Amino acid sequence: MKNAPTIGVFDSGFGGLTVLRALTERMPRARFVFVGDTARLPYGSKSRRTVARYAAESAQFLVREQGAQFLVIACNTASALALDAIKDAVSVPVLGVIEPGAQAARAASQTGDVLVMATDATVQSHAYAAACGAQGLRAMEKACPLLVPLVEEGWTEHAVTEEVVRIYVNEMRAEAQARGMDADTLVLGCTHYPLLRPVIERVLAEGAGRAMRVIDSAESTAEAAVRLFDGQGRTREGAVAQTEIRCFATDSVEKFERLGSKFLGRPVGKVDLLDLGG
Amino acid sequence: MKNAPTIGVFDSGFGGLTVLRALTERMPRARFVFVGDTARLPYGSKSRRTVARYAAESAQFLVREQGAQFLVIACNTASALALDAIKDAVSVPVLGVIEPGAQAARAASQTGDVLVMATDATVQSHAYAAACGAQGLRAMEKACPLLVPLVEEGWTEHAVTEEVVRIYVNEMRAEAQARGMDADTLVLGCTHYPLLRPVIERVLAEGAGRAMRVIDSAESTAEAAVRLFDGQGRTREGAVAQTEIRCFATDSVEKFERLGSKFLGRPVGKVDLLDLGG
Repeated sequence: MKNAPTIGVFDSGFGGLTVLRALTERMPRARFVFVGDTARLPYGSKSRRTVARYAAESAQFLVREQGAQFLVIACNTASALALDAIKDAVSVPVLGVIEPGAQAARAASQTGDVLVMATDATVQSHAYAAACGAQGLRAMEKACPLLVPLVEEGWTEHAVTEEVVRIYVNEMRAEAQARGMDADTLVLGCTHYPLLRPVIERVLAEGAGRAMRVIDSAESTAEAAVRLFDGQGRTREGAVAQTEIRCFATDSVEKFERLGSKFLGRPVGKVDLLDLGG
Repeated sequence: MKNAPTIGVFDSGFGGLTVLRALTERMPRARFVFVGDTARLPYGSKSRRTVARYAAESAQFLVREQGAQFLVIACNTASALALDAIKDAVSVPVLGVIEPGAQAARAASQTGDVLVMATDATVQSHAYAAACGAQGLRAMEKACPLLVPLVEEGWTEHAVTEEVVRIYVNEMRAEAQARGMDADTLVLGCTHYPLLRPVIERVLAEGAGRAMRVIDSAESTAEAAVRLFDGQGRTREGAVAQTEIRCFATDSVEKFERLGSKFLGRPVGKVDLLDLGG
């Protein structure tokens, strides 16, 4: 038991629990420690320097105090702005969410044209466009700022949400067409969006256009984690009898506990309050 | 000119620009300095101690560095959690947004039963229920977490927004009825909601129930500010030829400039970046 691999998962909020869910499905006999830096979210409106400092603090807590042997940065903003800073701050392997999503898009796309739905902050960072470009893909990013609030309201299967998704999808398709793109792949570039995958796929199927393959970056990241960490042989050593999950939040434990189980697909249990300072 | 009254207005974001707008309409010959602490929003998920520290820093900047002779706290969370701390931190008169809204509700309501639409954080603070209770009113608060994102998406006159407002209003009315309330007054308890007043009034008029009087706490606060500050005779001295407005934000100047004019009802002009520290 003492050799059970411990995987640290970090997000600015609790959306990254969809990544944790995908990880536990693929590595059921590992220990997971999750930190949601809810006191300092949203990272999206903060400078690169500030995000890097915040993310490094959480990463160091996971490695030094919780014994994490691998880190998954389950946060698009931190992956976009602070992955190098986190790698500098700790001595364990670190995986972000953006690169795996872009790699999965390359594997899925036949036309080489890809659409990305994400938050305003992620779109403004153009991290997906850059990562897709590095894979030889042409990507168009679409900011969908209402989707996170709709998920957090619990309206994952609601007529209003379907209408909002329809508006965003139609705008995105029209803009892609105007740019002469022939997109066949859609990347869900936000950790909240896996909860909207059914409604997004339903809306995509309405259109008369080309069928779209949906890439869930939470799934892609978990697959990349298995390749990376298992490649190092660590998740097979000293496995625990069943998945162990421990969650920390820097504030708003109540909201985390109330909403977290929807993201994780099981009860999050007691969430511990963590003080990382102002 | 050197005696022109300077009024400091503070918010965690830029929603408080609706309060600034109402103030400039009533005090067109004053100088206004606005601080939006956008780097550290949302205040709603933070502890009372943290909100008090943040708000006191902005208040001190407005008074000490910008020469504000009065302060208006155009932020529901800071008004709910930190009004006393701000009053302790500065030596000028300080006015929040909650008390004026409750006073206006008392003046408007015949039945003594009042509904309040607000953000999740404001509802959880129960500041409006307490302020209305102090006025002898019975208040029911309804959290409407999708309304701020819809306003920030620019969908102030959109079918989706009307449908969301209809859902919230119907839920609120059903719950009030279940509690045996006979509400005749609705308080808009968030600085973003004045932009939704037309759609809210349209939806309220659909119902078969009692007609509802809408109280806009931005308007109520501006009226209270005129009473308080003019009662001290200060806004009549040394007035400027026309309204002067200077805006500071602690981050996200771009979003502030892009959306701010909708809230202020005129261009916000150049927004200065202000560093209040981490």
